[in-house]
Formats: sequence, C-alpha cells, structure tokens
Amino acid sequence: MLEELKLAVYEANMELPGRGLVTYTWGNVSGIDRDKNLVVIKPSGVPYDELKPEHLVVLDMEGNIVEGRFKPSSDTPTHLVIYRKFKEVGGIVHTHSKWATTWAQSGRSIPALGTTHADYFYGDIPCTREMTSAEINGEYEKETGNVIVETFMNNNPIHVPGVLVRNHGPFTWGKDAHEAVHNAVVLEEIAMMAFNTFLLNPEAKPVNQSLLDRHFLRKHGANAYYGQR
Amino acid sequence: MLEELKLAVYEANMELPGRGLVTYTWGNVSGIDRDKNLVVIKPSGVPYDELKPEHLVVLDMEGNIVEGRFKPSSDTPTHLVIYRKFKEVGGIVHTHSKWATTWAQSGRSIPALGTTHADYFYGDIPCTREMTSAEINGEYEKETGNVIVETFMNNNPIHVPGVLVRNHGPFTWGKDAHEAVHNAVVLEEIAMMAFNTFLLNPEAKPVNQSLLDRHFLRKHGANAYYGQR
Amino acid sequence: MLEELKLAVYEANMELPGRGLVTYTWGNVSGIDRDKNLVVIKPSGVPYDELKPEHLVVLDMEGNIVEGRFKPSSDTPTHLVIYRKFKEVGGIVHTHSKWATTWAQSGRSIPALGTTHADYFYGDIPCTREMTSAEINGEYEKETGNVIVETFMNNNPIHVPGVLVRNHGPFTWGKDAHEAVHNAVVLEEIAMMAFNTFLLNPEAKPVNQSLLDRHFLRKHGANAYYGQR
Amino acid sequence: MLEELKLAVYEANMELPGRGLVTYTWGNVSGIDRDKNLVVIKPSGVPYDELKPEHLVVLDMEGNIVEGRFKPSSDTPTHLVIYRKFKEVGGIVHTHSKWATTWAQSGRSIPALGTTHADYFYGDIPCTREMTSAEINGEYEKETGNVIVETFMNNNPIHVPGVLVRNHGPFTWGKDAHEAVHNAVVLEEIAMMAFNTFLLNPEAKPVNQSLLDRHFLRKHGANAYYGQR
Repeated sequence: MLEELKLAVYEANMELPGRGLVTYTWGNVSGIDRDKNLVVIKPSGVPYDELKPEHLVVLDMEGNIVEGRFKPSSDTPTHLVIYRKFKEVGGIVHTHSKWATTWAQSGRSIPALGTTHADYFYGDIPCTREMTSAEINGEYEKETGNVIVETFMNNNPIHVPGVLVRNHGPFTWGKDAHEAVHNAVVLEEIAMMAFNTFLLNPEAKPVNQSLLDRHFLRKHGANAYYGQR
Repeated sequence: MLEELKLAVYEANMELPGRGLVTYTWGNVSGIDRDKNLVVIKPSGVPYDELKPEHLVVLDMEGNIVEGRFKPSSDTPTHLVIYRKFKEVGGIVHTHSKWATTWAQSGRSIPALGTTHADYFYGDIPCTREMTSAEINGEYEKETGNVIVETFMNNNPIHVPGVLVRNHGPFTWGKDAHEAVHNAVVLEEIAMMAFNTFLLNPEAKPVNQSLLDRHFLRKHGANAYYGQR
Repeated sequence: MLEELKLAVYEANMELPGRGLVTYTWGNVSGIDRDKNLVVIKPSGVPYDELKPEHLVVLDMEGNIVEGRFKPSSDTPTHLVIYRKFKEVGGIVHTHSKWATTWAQSGRSIPALGTTHADYFYGDIPCTREMTSAEINGEYEKETGNVIVETFMNNNPIHVPGVLVRNHGPFTWGKDAHEAVHNAVVLEEIAMMAFNTFLLNPEAKPVNQSLLDRHFLRKHGANAYYGQR
Repeated sequence: MLEELKLAVYEANMELPGRGLVTYTWGNVSGIDRDKNLVVIKPSGVPYDELKPEHLVVLDMEGNIVEGRFKPSSDTPTHLVIYRKFKEVGGIVHTHSKWATTWAQSGRSIPALGTTHADYFYGDIPCTREMTSAEINGEYEKETGNVIVETFMNNNPIHVPGVLVRNHGPFTWGKDAHEAVHNAVVLEEIAMMAFNTFLLNPEAKPVNQSLLDRHFLRKHGANAYYGQR
C-alpha cells in the first residue's frame, strides 16, 4: 500500500547521507497521506546502506502499525504530534546534523543574518525550551513534539519550516518529504554561516524587516518572482 | 546566436558546483559581448544538474530578452548595472559561498592579511553599506548594483575584482566569465583564511604597502614576472 | 591462527582511513580472544594502503609475539593494560583524529552537551592527567595504559567507552574491534559538536540527569527500545 | 637528464593537489642532486592537471637554466638559498595551505601542543620576522630565503623541517621531495589542531620536555623504535 509515498519517503531518507546530514542511523524522514491519514516512516536503527522501500513502516495517526515488518523510528511520536498540529505539513525530517545541532546544544535560536536565511525562513529559527524531568521521564518522544508545537504558538510553521530541539537537534518539514529534506539542507547551511558570522562579529545584527520581506516574498506567496513559475 | 559565449558562460556556471561554491541554485554567472552589447546569463532557479547551454538567456543592456525560453536570473539587474559602469568587466559571478557570505553577514571588509590576497586583490575587498528600505522596496536588484558601483567610487574594480554585498553574499568579476569564476574561488579561499587568522589573532594587521605592491605587481601589469608570459 | 579475529581486526583497521580518522599511519586497532588470551594488533608504521590481514601480529598478554613477521604497533603495551584491567573490552582503537585530539591537547574532558553524546557515553568523556617525567622516561606506553585505568577508577569503562589521553589523542573500546571503531567515529562527531557549541556559547551546560538517563538507557541495557532488538 | 629525480619531483608536485594542499597553482616542489649540484623544480604558473615530468626545469645553484622550456617557479631563489645553507635538505615544498597560512598570517609560531607535533617537529615551528621594505623591493624571493635561514640560526633545520613565512605561507623540507611533501601534510594537520586547541583553550601549554623527547626520539635518531626499521 502507499507504494508511491513509500518510494518518495525512501528517496528522501537516502538523500540524508548523500547530503552529509547523517552519521550512521542518526536521522529519519517521514511522509503523510492526508486523505488516508497514514504516515510512512523509516524503521528504527536500520543502516542507510541496507535500507529498502519495503522496510518502511506505515502507521495510523495514533501510531499503530498498519503495514511493515520493522519497528518504526523511535522518534515516531514526535512526527505524529507535528502532523496532527501542523495541518499543512506533508513531510518531516529529523537529523543530528552538525551545525544545527551545535545551535541546539547552545540553546540559541538562529536569527536571520542574511538573505540566504530570508529566502527560506521568515524570521528566527527557534530553539525550544528545556524539557522538564516529568516530560523526559514520561512519554518523552511525544512530549518532544508538544514542546515543538508550543514553540510555534505565535508562529506560522509554514513560514518557518524548522526548529531546533534544545540539547538534541533539528526537525524540519515541508509540503512533502522531499521539501522537508531540502529545508534540512538549507537549515544546515544557514546554521553554519550564522555560526561563522557570530565568531567573526559577536555583535552581528539580523537583517531589517524590509530585506526579510523582500527575500522571503520573492520566493514565496502570490507575488513570488524567483524561478520559472 | 552567441553560441561561443553561451558555451563559455555555461561552463563557467557549471564550475560553481564543481568548486563547492553553490548549494542548490544559489549562484549565477553571466558574460557580455561588448561589440554587440548583449549579455548571456543563467536562467532563474534552474538546477545545475539540469542546466544546458541552450537554457541560457540572451539580454540587451536594458534587460530585454533577445533569445531564450526561460526567465533570466532574478539578479540580472545587478549584473547589468555592473556591466554598464565597469567597462573592462567581461564576466560576473554571484554566489552565497560560505566564507565570503560570512564576511558579508558580518558587515566587514576583508583586509589584505597575506600574499594570497595580494596576488589577486590590490587592497581591501570592500563590504557595501546597508541598503535603505526605499532601495529594498524599489528596484531592489538594480539598487544592489548601484550600491556596488557606489562602493567602488574611489577604487579600481579591475584592481579589486570583487565585493561583499552586505547581509547577502559576494559578487566577483573578470575579463570574461572564466576569470570571474577564478576570482570567486580565490575570494572564497582568502575569506576563509582571513576568518581563521582573526580567530587566532584578533589584532592581525594587513600586509605593508611594499608587500602588497610586490605581490600584486608580480602577477599583474607591465612588469609581471609570474607564470609563462 | 585466529583467522576470523584477524580478518575482523583488519577490517576495523581499514575503516579508520575510510572514516577520515587517520592521516598516514596515525592509528591502530586491536582485538582480543578472551578464551585463548591472545591479542591481534596492527603492525607498527605499515601504511594502510599496503596493509593485509596476514600482516597483523598475534601477541600473548605479556606482549610476546606468538605469530607475525612484523613488529606490533608501538602502542601495544597501552592496549594490553586496557585488556588486562577492563575485562568486558573486546576491541580497542587509538587514533589522532582531529577533534578528539583537539580536546586532548586542551586538557579538557568533554561534557555531555546533547543527546548524541548521551546516546553513547553515559557522562563526561574524561581527559587523563598529565604524565610525570618518570612515567614518560620509563615504560611510557605501559604507563599510558595505567593512567587510563586510573582515570576510570570511579567510572564504568563500558558506560563511557573512550578516553582522551592528555596532549596525545583518543582511545576508544567496545565489545569487539568493530564496535570500538564505531565508538571512535561517534567520539569524533561528539568532540566536534562540543567544540563548536563552546565556541558559540562558552557557558553551555551539560544535559540534565533525566535526559542523560533517557537517551543512554533507550539504547543500552535491559529496557532499551531503540533499533530492532 | 636527471630523469629519475624529475619523476620523483613530478610525483611529489602532483601529491600536493591530491592531499588538498594547493588551490590552482599555489605551490611548488623541488629536489636536488647533491652530487651534480643541480636542482629540479616546477615551472611557474603551470596548472597541476597539465603538468608533465618533462615540464620541470633543471637549474644550477646560481639559478641558471640547464634544461627546460619553461620559466621556473617564481619562488626558485628561495629554494636555492635553502639548498645552499641547509646541506642535509634534499627536497623543498612551498604551499599556501590553509591552516599553516593562517598561522603565517597571524604572525605566530606553532608550539608543540601534543604528540602529533612532537613525532615530527622537535619544538616550535617558527614564524619568520616581518621583511623590511628594502628586502621586499630588492631581490625579494632570495631575501625570503635569507630570512628563513636567519630564523634557523639557533635551530637545527633537520629537527624542525619547516617554517612559516610571515604573511605568506609554509615552506617544508626533507631528505628528498617525497619526505618534504610528507612534512607539508603533517605541518598542515598540526597547524589545524593547534588552531583548534587555542580556540578551545587560549591558555593551552606546550608539552613538557620529557614528552617532546620521548616522541621525537622514538621516531628519529639512533634509538628509534617506531615502524619496522
């Protein structure tokens, strides 16, 4: 079932090591079929060089396995919370990519220091608050999703398609699994350049609102004029 | 038309991902035929692994499309200003390469800290001033060109074949598209080593005028003695 | 003799250059047969691209050569001390990998700044004390082993499968040579991200005990739920 | 003539881009035949991917061309001074490799912070003093050699087979061209790790004399016990 979605999610998963975003099995991609309310996700701990489309796991929105011989990614409950709350999201990526994880470990949000950032993320890429011991000792992976949702309470997840989970690493999303990986690659580049910028100039300031608007809106929305649309 | 120039501009474009200067479509190269006053430039948003010479767009100096099925790069008006004002320039490159962009985001010019810099750039590689909201909200890409030209008011663009556009990224140029890419690669190396130098020694000083002269002039000008000329 | 162990130790050795952990001959892997009390180790100074399984040296626990035409790694006495004292260790790796060596040269232990660390190392990765001139001028490589053992006096080497030898570089271990290399790769990633984290936020704090427990124990021990076990 | 030496110097030159030490033509290797007092060196400005053994230039000790169609490297007078003064040197390398050049631009010598350094360089890798305008405006490349020799006035160039020319980049040497390249690679690794060490711990201290002796002498001299000798 969902063979087309499985193939797309498989290809998106395989792009992670190809782009240098994962070491060993430290990452996973999922995709959702919004009509059927079914999620396809990478199995837990399976090495990327052994992964095949038929290894992917199909789940319902409560996390019950609908198809698949393997256990799904241990981060599955986080993905499910995001799909339930962010209705426009069609694909999700989690990695421990080095630059985004550096920011997550530093507990700092990434401000929009340049047009590369503004082209994709309409403002700060936020870092979540520290989780409580109760959250960690309870349904940890689900609570991770809840703290992500809480972070976007006053923010549009489509305008800022990613987050840094504190002391952990990044989650990114998009209209499908492919776009979620694209945003994971972009986040990593932005995180790296923002890191370097602050080392060179600790007083570096975000771009002003005009530049943020100009770049985000020339690529997104009704009046976009970048590309061949 | 302009098949030879198109091929040269195509090859120069393809060198950007080969040299690690672009992620996705974040870069473009153009070239000019000074006799015909026609510019050849990369189309907007076309992935490098799909780009072919026939995709390139031919424009007149006012930006009207003379040949080509695609929309030209959204940065085209910036290129055109540079060609109109810097008469010796035959090719232009724009990227978001990480080290030059780090300096652009930091709002700092790159001083000549060593002979690698002096071999190619005869003094500071300047960072442009912040653009005004009026400039950003108006003809933004054209104004970007104007602010570059303004930055070189007291500077010879042939002696310093590149600039950092603040909060954005580098533009480099040369006698043709190939040399412009060469200078983009050199700028990136220089930016990286200058970054590292300031981290190791925040009080690092530029080379003295004698060393700057010796190295720039042994490679450029009437008495050059580097290479096989 | 020990052909299977030799092949495993050979493959583990060859993974070091493949993973970018060694330059020239700066690294070695060994494995032990606990039933026979025999150790298999890389020969000293043999380039990796010439190394073959039959070049490996078989030693008893006192370091006497049991089989092999070559001299064993000069670090052999360090390996032997570790095998004698840490009874659950089946394989050992030593490298001068750049990030772990940076911490070793800095004389700093690596605190658990994130979940990547907590997934593999249950607390700080310690840096050994400075060795005395008597230790260095005496049986240096054996004393290196002794100072490693001393560092783990109050620590379980299975919970923290690696160490930074001050002014030198990392040793890691595992249940076999393959796992020891896996831990060497993980240590390098952790060391790199911890380095970057402290550059971005010099006041960065370790994760709290709940998060350390949750991540270490979801991958290790009786209640582990990561992967396909 | 000198076909064997030419081949060795050619192969040593080609190893520079292979090891990531040069961009474009920013580097050169030479070798000397001490019996014939003839030096073989890379031609000036010839791209590495076009270089062939027959392009190499043969010179006498005064820099007169004995064989070859091309102009020799513009750095030739520096090489010749080193050969004239350091009698045990058989091969010389110059590059603008990024980490060694970072130290040269910072005007700092590299202290022996760890055993990787001590294995190859018996103490600080010195940075030369600033050159005077008279030296720069005069026989610049020859004076560069003189300032290197001056730096080693109280130092054995065989014990410390390399130097950082201030605001310029590294020169390394060895008993032949191959060993000189080996030392260039090692210097680059050491420079990189020393850079990182000082960023992590600005108060990092050099290893003590015992550790420096132990590591340098286990690889060099009469009692060396590393490798298969």
